[in-house]
Amino acid sequence: MSLYKLTYFNGRGRGEIIRLVLTAADVPFEDNRLSREEFGHIKSTLPFLQIPTFEIDGKITLCQSLAIARHLARKYNLAGKTELEQVQADMIVDCIQDMLNPIIAFVHGDYDANKKAELKKKYLEEQLPVFLTKLEQFLVANNSGDSFFVGDSLTWADLYLVRANGTFNLLLGLEQPFANHPKLRALFERVTKIPRIAAYQANLPVTQF
Amino acid sequence: MSLYKLTYFNGRGRGEIIRLVLTAADVPFEDNRLSREEFGHIKSTLPFLQIPTFEIDGKITLCQSLAIARHLARKYNLAGKTELEQVQADMIVDCIQDMLNPIIAFVHGDYDANKKAELKKKYLEEQLPVFLTKLEQFLVANNSGDSFFVGDSLTWADLYLVRANGTFNLLLGLEQPFANHPKLRALFERVTKIPRIAAYQANLPVTQF
Repeated sequence: MSLYKLTYFNGRGRGEIIRLVLTAADVPFEDNRLSREEFGHIKSTLPFLQIPTFEIDGKITLCQSLAIARHLARKYNLAGKTELEQVQADMIVDCIQDMLNPIIAFVHGDYDANKKAELKKKYLEEQLPVFLTKLEQFLVANNSGDSFFVGDSLTWADLYLVRANGTFNLLLGLEQPFANHPKLRALFERVTKIPRIAAYQANLPVTQF
Repeated sequence: MSLYKLTYFNGRGRGEIIRLVLTAADVPFEDNRLSREEFGHIKSTLPFLQIPTFEIDGKITLCQSLAIARHLARKYNLAGKTELEQVQADMIVDCIQDMLNPIIAFVHGDYDANKKAELKKKYLEEQLPVFLTKLEQFLVANNSGDSFFVGDSLTWADLYLVRANGTFNLLLGLEQPFANHPKLRALFERVTKIPRIAAYQANLPVTQF
């Protein structure tokens, strides 16, 4: 039995950063993937009615994907080497999340099709390029952008870019979301060429999100 | 000159948790409050176009309120005493944030007045009571709810409940948001009776949010 059990939908979404951190750290875990129906059956029993949840040693059940991923990143030396690197990694993760947040409105929001199309157009043409430019500026401020988001080694902030790429691919149909941001694109390639990450990415299950 | 400079609007909102952590830790800081107009002038120069920002020693500028507050909480022993307490505090903060997130839709969302009223009614009658009940369950699971959210001492998760209370007061007009959740209410009172927090709360500037 694994020490760790992740429970999430059969998708990447908010579960993926936990899978990526554990993959980078080479730590085995049980990857429990629920259908919508199965989630409905257990929802009321969950700490905050949400998945992902994360069980440790069959005793403790955590929720909140970023809290879980940060905990694991710290445990397995993927959170930054100094106090400053750690807060910077946390900051970049939250900035990437802010970049992803508007997507929910035009994918699942309570709007008609015209309004959704308008929001999506605004996101792709106006909001997303600004977010990506600001992220690239962060990156370039550290070692001219030729290293990682913080310090000189991989952190979970870099892995969160891989998580974002999955959302851009699957929800927006953007195959090369970083095409116009060469330093971000190079970082994405650097991270996804790390052998364990490359093997994981090559064997991702086909999912809707 | 203070080591720390917080820049935010003249409101509580996303800046308040940083003020509360520094107040609890008895650490002085410069509390730089901007008008909307002043924010407009500096927006393009900010790391992610957002405030709060937080300057350390005039050298480093951070953004993302929760990343900043967590960093300070760790530095001043308000983040939890063990790895487990730390991830649980992070989790509770994110759950409280999830409880607050729907408010933005009916306060600032792109909806007509009827839709906003409908969303607000649903929030107050259906969503908020469930969030509060789940939070109270967390609390009760630790020392029967007679201590703090995690462990046996104050963490920034408890302070985040004070931040939430401010939002309920100012944006929703709820003077006693925890009235139906006695253990949460008792926690709120326990925290706001800590002398430094009590003095801070008694001298809060009158603001819109």
